[in-house]
Amino acid sequence: MPSGSPFLQACRGEAVPYTPVWFMRQAGRSLPEFRALRERYTFAEMTASAELTAEATMQPVRRLGVDAAILFSDIVTPLAAMGIDVEIEAGVGPVFAVPFRSEADLVRLRPLEPETDLAPVLAAVRIAVAELDVPLIGFAGAPFTVASYLIEGGPSRDYARTKALMLGEPVLWARLLDRLADITIASLRAQVGAGAAAVQVFDSWAGTLHPAHYESHVLPASTRVFNALADLGVPRIHFGVTTGELLGHFAAAGADVVGVDWRVPLDRARQRVGSRAVQGNLDPAVLGAPWAVVAAEADAVLDAAGARPGHIFNLGHGVLPGTDPDVLARLVEHVHERTADGRAPAVAPQAVRS
Amino acid sequence: MPSGSPFLQACRGEAVPYTPVWFMRQAGRSLPEFRALRERYTFAEMTASAELTAEATMQPVRRLGVDAAILFSDIVTPLAAMGIDVEIEAGVGPVFAVPFRSEADLVRLRPLEPETDLAPVLAAVRIAVAELDVPLIGFAGAPFTVASYLIEGGPSRDYARTKALMLGEPVLWARLLDRLADITIASLRAQVGAGAAAVQVFDSWAGTLHPAHYESHVLPASTRVFNALADLGVPRIHFGVTTGELLGHFAAAGADVVGVDWRVPLDRARQRVGSRAVQGNLDPAVLGAPWAVVAAEADAVLDAAGARPGHIFNLGHGVLPGTDPDVLARLVEHVHERTADGRAPAVAPQAVRS
Repeated sequence: MPSGSPFLQACRGEAVPYTPVWFMRQAGRSLPEFRALRERYTFAEMTASAELTAEATMQPVRRLGVDAAILFSDIVTPLAAMGIDVEIEAGVGPVFAVPFRSEADLVRLRPLEPETDLAPVLAAVRIAVAELDVPLIGFAGAPFTVASYLIEGGPSRDYARTKALMLGEPVLWARLLDRLADITIASLRAQVGAGAAAVQVFDSWAGTLHPAHYESHVLPASTRVFNALADLGVPRIHFGVTTGELLGHFAAAGADVVGVDWRVPLDRARQRVGSRAVQGNLDPAVLGAPWAVVAAEADAVLDAAGARPGHIFNLGHGVLPGTDPDVLARLVEHVHERTADGRAPAVAPQAVRS
Repeated sequence: MPSGSPFLQACRGEAVPYTPVWFMRQAGRSLPEFRALRERYTFAEMTASAELTAEATMQPVRRLGVDAAILFSDIVTPLAAMGIDVEIEAGVGPVFAVPFRSEADLVRLRPLEPETDLAPVLAAVRIAVAELDVPLIGFAGAPFTVASYLIEGGPSRDYARTKALMLGEPVLWARLLDRLADITIASLRAQVGAGAAAVQVFDSWAGTLHPAHYESHVLPASTRVFNALADLGVPRIHFGVTTGELLGHFAAAGADVVGVDWRVPLDRARQRVGSRAVQGNLDPAVLGAPWAVVAAEADAVLDAAGARPGHIFNLGHGVLPGTDPDVLARLVEHVHERTADGRAPAVAPQAVRS
């Protein structure tokens, strides 16, 4: 267990030899070796195989030199493992054959039995942890975002059905989120039991909610997830996009690290999350610009994060499929070099972008 | 010209007899009479016909009792009118046959000649203004959002090409935005000349940008648009979604009214836009909940807007296609009744949702 790793140190708000880096969706279509796997196997075949999951998890560590691995998975993987009919459609996302519509659908969400349901996932964690010399981050969806896929039947632009159920049937909604929280808790506890040294809870789409709706209808279930992981002693990261108005709630839910999308400069984000560490937040689309721009933008992120410990460098959302992996590798190197041994930010504080 | 209209009074930050209401996309698929038109005519046929455009513009005023009409249009209508090959695909949005890729594409963006290019649009404005007893809001896209459609070729999730061009070729980008600003200015000046009593500039997707990118690469062109409309003396509304971190810039660009999406409570938005009026911001998805929820959520919006003048009630984004028009009509009535004659907010200030 690499407990002295810069990634884990930064999660705990401790001083680091350099700012650690990893990328959401670092395992994925930007890597030729991943695309080669996907030409041979479906997403479902990959997540059902310990070897393939472990391989996809480790590929970006080998190629990019990132400071953490994250389990190759999808937020609906536990539901699929329980026998719920859901497919990951390329370029679309999870699509459920039978969306969640009423109380009768609750019965489909039985308690997760990780050692059987997630046997290949946990075996993959064990393989990757044994082979890697960087920490492995466990992966799970938060109750709201999983619920939104279940209710909409797939990705959504407006979450109309999700919000109508949340506001119109709050008791059923709370029961649904409670069941999903239980599944998330069971999955993450099992991943940590198998060797994951941190966890990230993806509430990717919670930023579609008014802060009051989030507070009333989502925060309780998410808080239960974070509280139920507290005794494990591993850093808990909480991430979503367009969460500018929710960052305080994301911290209050019990996260040790709050992931920030690129819309909120990290100095502003720091004010909203208090003493928690922050993770982020370069705009993934910036990686399509010339290298000089990428480097300058990465520096702006580092400058906004400031000299205070507790920053994990990441993108503000997942790596885009068309991203050049050489740019990702160069970015890791750049962040490491620029922050080595507490090197001061290159610009004076008053010039920091905010 | 209904200069004493509650809508115009609210735009100017004056006291109102009741809070005015209109809805983005109030002309559209939620209305059966609009769907009946669309069964017979394509979107392009409708925007090319003064009578059909005027009819679609007036339909929601008749049925819903809103306090303002908005020109039925699309942000790419001026480009289509100039002969650029773009289609509005149902459920998708504008799709360009030949996306903007390089300097050679600039020549396609010749200056707009509104009296000829937009002849049916301006005739529609004249018809609607003559028939309506509420103000008509002129409609145009802001340079960034129009540029994003041109460059991506259609709607986008990540704006990767747009941002790569913006950051990688800033001189070409500035030239593109300048041309689009000129087109927006010409279109809106002509609409006001034909009788529009206010304008709304849609920078719907600018909220995808980091504030520093917005400030460097978008704010100058948008400011030029708002400045070029100042002498007309009509209220200028500036709207986009996921703009929480940009609201100060949206005001600074020269707007009289800043439209706010539902993610930012209006009391917070007021702090960010200073003395400007605010417009918004009920989550459109709320309209799918039972009426008691809709009413309570509308009240929460009114309470967050507070007693200070300068609030136009609207949704935080467009009416969703599946919305029941009776709910829209009832909502207009509810907002009017609850705010009639400066009636105080129903809850004490400390209980206001924020």
